[in-house]
Amino acid sequence: MQFQEIITKLGKAAKNNSLNRDRNLNPEITGVAAIDEAISGTLSYVEGGKFTAHIATTEAGALILPTNETLQSQATSRNIAWIATPQPRLLFAKAISLYYKPFKPTPAIHPSAVIDPNTRIGQDVYIGANVVIQAGVIIGDRVTIHPNVVIYPDVTIGEDTILHANCTIHERTQIGSGCTIHSGAAIGSEGFGFVPTAVGWYKMEQSGYTVLEDGVEVGCNSAVDRPAVGETRIGSNTKIDNLVQIGHGCKIGRNCAMASQVGLAGGVIIGNGVMLGGQVGVANQVTIGDRVIATGQTGITGNVPAGEMVSGMPHIPTKIYRRLFVMYKKLPEIYQEYKKLQQKESNQ
Amino acid sequence: MQFQEIITKLGKAAKNNSLNRDRNLNPEITGVAAIDEAISGTLSYVEGGKFTAHIATTEAGALILPTNETLQSQATSRNIAWIATPQPRLLFAKAISLYYKPFKPTPAIHPSAVIDPNTRIGQDVYIGANVVIQAGVIIGDRVTIHPNVVIYPDVTIGEDTILHANCTIHERTQIGSGCTIHSGAAIGSEGFGFVPTAVGWYKMEQSGYTVLEDGVEVGCNSAVDRPAVGETRIGSNTKIDNLVQIGHGCKIGRNCAMASQVGLAGGVIIGNGVMLGGQVGVANQVTIGDRVIATGQTGITGNVPAGEMVSGMPHIPTKIYRRLFVMYKKLPEIYQEYKKLQQKESNQ
Amino acid sequence: MQFQEIITKLGKAAKNNSLNRDRNLNPEITGVAAIDEAISGTLSYVEGGKFTAHIATTEAGALILPTNETLQSQATSRNIAWIATPQPRLLFAKAISLYYKPFKPTPAIHPSAVIDPNTRIGQDVYIGANVVIQAGVIIGDRVTIHPNVVIYPDVTIGEDTILHANCTIHERTQIGSGCTIHSGAAIGSEGFGFVPTAVGWYKMEQSGYTVLEDGVEVGCNSAVDRPAVGETRIGSNTKIDNLVQIGHGCKIGRNCAMASQVGLAGGVIIGNGVMLGGQVGVANQVTIGDRVIATGQTGITGNVPAGEMVSGMPHIPTKIYRRLFVMYKKLPEIYQEYKKLQQKESNQ
Repeated sequence: MQFQEIITKLGKAAKNNSLNRDRNLNPEITGVAAIDEAISGTLSYVEGGKFTAHIATTEAGALILPTNETLQSQATSRNIAWIATPQPRLLFAKAISLYYKPFKPTPAIHPSAVIDPNTRIGQDVYIGANVVIQAGVIIGDRVTIHPNVVIYPDVTIGEDTILHANCTIHERTQIGSGCTIHSGAAIGSEGFGFVPTAVGWYKMEQSGYTVLEDGVEVGCNSAVDRPAVGETRIGSNTKIDNLVQIGHGCKIGRNCAMASQVGLAGGVIIGNGVMLGGQVGVANQVTIGDRVIATGQTGITGNVPAGEMVSGMPHIPTKIYRRLFVMYKKLPEIYQEYKKLQQKESNQ
Repeated sequence: MQFQEIITKLGKAAKNNSLNRDRNLNPEITGVAAIDEAISGTLSYVEGGKFTAHIATTEAGALILPTNETLQSQATSRNIAWIATPQPRLLFAKAISLYYKPFKPTPAIHPSAVIDPNTRIGQDVYIGANVVIQAGVIIGDRVTIHPNVVIYPDVTIGEDTILHANCTIHERTQIGSGCTIHSGAAIGSEGFGFVPTAVGWYKMEQSGYTVLEDGVEVGCNSAVDRPAVGETRIGSNTKIDNLVQIGHGCKIGRNCAMASQVGLAGGVIIGNGVMLGGQVGVANQVTIGDRVIATGQTGITGNVPAGEMVSGMPHIPTKIYRRLFVMYKKLPEIYQEYKKLQQKESNQ
Repeated sequence: MQFQEIITKLGKAAKNNSLNRDRNLNPEITGVAAIDEAISGTLSYVEGGKFTAHIATTEAGALILPTNETLQSQATSRNIAWIATPQPRLLFAKAISLYYKPFKPTPAIHPSAVIDPNTRIGQDVYIGANVVIQAGVIIGDRVTIHPNVVIYPDVTIGEDTILHANCTIHERTQIGSGCTIHSGAAIGSEGFGFVPTAVGWYKMEQSGYTVLEDGVEVGCNSAVDRPAVGETRIGSNTKIDNLVQIGHGCKIGRNCAMASQVGLAGGVIIGNGVMLGGQVGVANQVTIGDRVIATGQTGITGNVPAGEMVSGMPHIPTKIYRRLFVMYKKLPEIYQEYKKLQQKESNQ
């Protein structure tokens, strides 16, 4: 489609654009690309930082730029059409959707699916080959269940939710609407509940259940356990990446993001808008306030107040963490000085 | 059921209880709950620590308490029935089982299961939809195999073992009786055996096999590899959480517990009663003695003697680890002092 | 088979052996074993280090040894046949293959497999029970697809590649020839692309795809995501262990090895011959040069030049890391000295 049409389809967010200045620069745009891989005729974007250097050399036919006149002039001078916006990445995300529709199978129930008669299946649902749905399950309208998914008894799944291949939803789990569960994830599985006794571990039955509120995503091969009693809950629109562990009885707020390989032990309470970097671990029963950010590999061993940014193991405020690490690298000189000092004292 | 009946069913462990003092306080108990979520008519428990504060406000109808007269009096004064025991969590685990029976499908073999004729299947076995069982497999009595499990050739599975959906058991694996393999776990898969050569990696075939002794649990999406030669072995009643990696040729003792995302490299030897916290890593060929405890995210890079508690990366005894961290946080003041010192010296 | 025959089959690499000296020591070798588990009649190997001590006691009938005359004489004196080579582990790997052929099902398509008519399947392919192959998929000759694998649309899979049970290959993925994808892995799944907005996360559609070049292995339950635009690429003969996360848009070179539970965030660029230890994490957009080595649990937060060995979180050169840790353990004495100093000053 022509650049003009992209502008029109992106609407208000694209109102500041090069067409307003140069009606003739209206290239045919055939697709979207990353700035360092863009070929002729593609639309790309620059958010800032080191990527701005690519404007000087990119083959892209059009760019989404930050609201920065220098960058815009640079693009213009290279005959690259552009749109300027305070949120280039967001607008680029919207532009992708002009060219790409994700694979979505046509509603149908594959004859090889094994569905208990005691279930309730909504309208326009897709149930792929070899899916197994057990008694008491309720599936909302327009749900997509990819092949080889297994759903244990008494699960409810809200409208428009997508379950990718080979994932497993355990008994009594409640999944909201508009959720996506990626391949291989296990939701509502038994919490790790063993009580030590003189003769070994006593298994505590996990009678609770797991709730994912609306708009939650859970990544590939992640696990969200259910607790012994009560519920594990993930708040609406929280996004969880691949290979993440959510322990039994965790209560997670809304709009959080957890990067890959994060691990939460049992009973962790997390507020809204919290962001945990890759491989962050959180100890048992810890409470984390709203909008906390933890950088990658942080080990959160105790409560974190709202709004704090933490790093390190055990976690400390990121500012202090960085200062301490600068000091840490000076240890050899500190040690040398201390040895001198000691020498002097022993000479006195 | 009435409190009286719970007491009776829990038997000797519940002999110290409020009914002995007040025959009239015999509430109807409708279920079990966590102390901070207990509603009217539920049974809950308090082990100690911060949770004791809930006794003053809980809606619970009955509590399992530690053998602590103050807490007991507090419960009595609020008209809450109670049982006192040195192990409240253990007794609560038993109480859960009075109210909750885990989902267990009725023995049957689903017609969609694909079972090689050259297999031996025990009595009262459940084999779910789309399960695939290959040649030479032996399945003990009362085994439960949930849907979409794949069993490679020559596997043996002991009595009463449960395989959850979508897990994969690789060739020659021996699983004992009373084991549970959770959804998506891969048992007996190929060890990561590649020998570096001038022209790249040479694949070492993994001719060994994996043994899980009786009562082992392996969590969702965990992986237990088999070795090039010999066996990987997990001792009886060892419990492994989700997303754990057990490398090829590891030998793990009895009654261990490994929290989520623990990773053992190849050839690790672990004694009995060892507890590894979440995200702990253990390097190649390391030996860990009986009853060792490693706190979360510890990186065990060398042997650990029996009975030790370790932390940090690389691991050191936890006591030293804690002291060093206190010192670490003082680095800025130490550094300041050292700079003053340097200044003075250069002035002399 | 007799030792003589092993020598012959191993060819040139085995030319330095004890038969050249003692024609009579030609034992029957019934299998292969680790040196610390070798029983009578087995072939084992010693690479060096602590394992050489086993030569004095092993029951093995034959050994593969390093080119070390002392060890060879020791074996001879115990009547153990031997082969000497500069690469004992490599030769042992080859010896395993004399005794062990990995399980490989006979080419056939199981009637329960669900295969879209719009696919192209090569010669001598095995497609196991309950496999699902969707439209537009192209499968090369001699590919093995174990049971319960799901392949989304428009995937291509090269000759001789093996897909183990319960793994999932997502839309548009290109897998080369001679690759192995282990059980439960998810390849080409959606990258974790969410743009923060005032009203929550905006999902960036992941229109890109994932490429695995020839000879790549991906371990059990690992995940290799596809990007929003462009490709995620893993270079030829790179080996990836279990539970590894490869984020969207990563570009990984040839002949790398990544141990279990490594996590790469988005857009990471890695050269050739790089080795990442277990649980290593790499931050967004980082570039890692050729032949870099990172020890277990390293947190790579910025670019690493070619040839460097790094450790720690944040990563630093391993040599410095080790020296700093030695200093770190001296912190209590340094602190004591600093307190003394402070005391003195306040007394002046």
